[in-house]
Amino acid sequence: MMGTAMTVPLRDNGHEVRLVGTPLDEGIIAEVKRTGIHPTLRRSVPDGVQPYPVEQLQQALANTDLLIAGVSSFGVEWFSDTVLPLLAETPLPVLAVTKGLAGQEDGTVLPFPHLWHRRQPAGGESSFQAIGGPCTSYELADRRHSAVVFCGDDQERLDFLRSLLETSYYHISISTDVIGVESAVALKNAYAVGITMTVGLLQREEGIGCREAYNPQAAIFGQCMREISELVTLFGGLEHSIAYGVSDLYVTVYGGRTRKLGILLGRGLSYADAKSELDGVTLESVAICTAAASALRRLAEAGEACLDRFPLLLHIDEVINRGQPVNIPWKRFVRRDLQQAERHRGCSPRPQT
Amino acid sequence: MMGTAMTVPLRDNGHEVRLVGTPLDEGIIAEVKRTGIHPTLRRSVPDGVQPYPVEQLQQALANTDLLIAGVSSFGVEWFSDTVLPLLAETPLPVLAVTKGLAGQEDGTVLPFPHLWHRRQPAGGESSFQAIGGPCTSYELADRRHSAVVFCGDDQERLDFLRSLLETSYYHISISTDVIGVESAVALKNAYAVGITMTVGLLQREEGIGCREAYNPQAAIFGQCMREISELVTLFGGLEHSIAYGVSDLYVTVYGGRTRKLGILLGRGLSYADAKSELDGVTLESVAICTAAASALRRLAEAGEACLDRFPLLLHIDEVINRGQPVNIPWKRFVRRDLQQAERHRGCSPRPQT
Repeated sequence: MMGTAMTVPLRDNGHEVRLVGTPLDEGIIAEVKRTGIHPTLRRSVPDGVQPYPVEQLQQALANTDLLIAGVSSFGVEWFSDTVLPLLAETPLPVLAVTKGLAGQEDGTVLPFPHLWHRRQPAGGESSFQAIGGPCTSYELADRRHSAVVFCGDDQERLDFLRSLLETSYYHISISTDVIGVESAVALKNAYAVGITMTVGLLQREEGIGCREAYNPQAAIFGQCMREISELVTLFGGLEHSIAYGVSDLYVTVYGGRTRKLGILLGRGLSYADAKSELDGVTLESVAICTAAASALRRLAEAGEACLDRFPLLLHIDEVINRGQPVNIPWKRFVRRDLQQAERHRGCSPRPQT
Repeated sequence: MMGTAMTVPLRDNGHEVRLVGTPLDEGIIAEVKRTGIHPTLRRSVPDGVQPYPVEQLQQALANTDLLIAGVSSFGVEWFSDTVLPLLAETPLPVLAVTKGLAGQEDGTVLPFPHLWHRRQPAGGESSFQAIGGPCTSYELADRRHSAVVFCGDDQERLDFLRSLLETSYYHISISTDVIGVESAVALKNAYAVGITMTVGLLQREEGIGCREAYNPQAAIFGQCMREISELVTLFGGLEHSIAYGVSDLYVTVYGGRTRKLGILLGRGLSYADAKSELDGVTLESVAICTAAASALRRLAEAGEACLDRFPLLLHIDEVINRGQPVNIPWKRFVRRDLQQAERHRGCSPRPQT
């Protein structure tokens, strides 16, 4: 869906665009060929976009300037195995819409651009960039104003990619803080479960259809910000990159499957039962929660992280992966901030007491 | 309303509570006396709370441990003139629910606890603290989980205040970063106008009742975070205090008069016309936008701030105070983040390129 939505700014900028389905997208590509409409995005594919089935991937790659990878985190391995070898002889810049982090055996996490860099065949010269920030595919396809960030290691290449895709409604920042941006935008999926759990908890108390309460959601939102900020720096990113993830959290909470999962868990369903209600599909939010909590526990074992700083992530992980009931540890979010700010020249003087 | 909501945790903790109206609250106090219900909060006042008209303020203050100031920022002067003199002989800790910043003639801003400290009669020994964080009065009165922060200069006093008010649902952090907390929670009111302007802009295009779009709201939300973060440090606060304001922004956007103002401006109404639609009342959001933009411009004139870093606040200010039409400067929000993070021991290695 996001891959198809990306064809909108591409075509608006006059590029030739080829839309290739994965092996899971045969029906979608057939439908696009037949009707011009993407059946789950429920939008017309822009005029001039040429749909290709996966068997014609190699033809589709001929004479291209850019490959946009539209797979979810569950398609990362398929992309590594199937697409990367095809790039060995004709290296391309790759721009991924994928959000997630790959948990490594040593407990560290790897953003997908770095994973693909490692996975490309020896001597491969493709470069790997990713898109972060709050942007739903539906609204991009509708040309709503959307602010995203392209992250990668090479500033000039990022500028080039921006020049291909920027439009009057698609606003592109660039960042070389790949681990920071990718951690922040991946983590928001895990943390959105925590916020929406409070919606389900209230429904359990007052019945489905009750009026929503925002104080509890906002309380968790603040805790999410603090934990995302600490995790991003713990994973090696820059603190200011969290804005891309936190603004994305703002959107994710409003709807979609992650919201449903949080609500079901809050109502009291076990993760197994909630997953069944969601057609048995493992969500991105579950994958990133598991990877991040696992990395965090390993870092703590190595004395490099303090688990007490992450009560919310660990609670979500215990509910999802250890069968614990939802019981939000509110009092563990309480803080004592006793630092004093340096007095800045522009600030008001502190009273003399 | 918030003053009355605060009686709920106070009474749950068994305190004797006296509820005093301001001169604007005569009708409310009479109604509480007659029916036990606060007419605009639309909730029963807890059993045992004793309502007092403003004429009996002095009696109400006799033998008390704490004064909670429930005035809005427009009542700060009244509080200074009327209440502070009464505290001259019997000093009390004061805890204010008021959100805002007082613009000073020299262009700096002053949080209300510091303003009141200056304003108390010579030799006065009352102390001034304030409450920040995302907490609507309705939901506090309903005993929803709410996370707030008490800020002040004295840690032990903050711990004492927390001990009086903490309950199973009212979660209290403490912070000595008064200017940081107060700036963040005040600024969110100004910035909420920016987010909700996008709702009105869409309605102007597609008609009132159209489906909301979240990409534009989230794009502005990210910019709000960045500008609030820079303003808080510019005003002399600590960056991590922004979480109290940003989580509050999350709530403010959902409803209330600030949301209405943003929507009306987005639809194309002038500020004067929007204000008329809102019964001619000046909102907190307008007051803080005006104070912050004015402080910012003075700091810039003195070479201590760069206006280019705050395109959103300045645009909101131009719409409200300079009669400009809404025309969100999207491209001025685009960033080039080219810093590299220090590699932390716990992070994934960057690829060798």
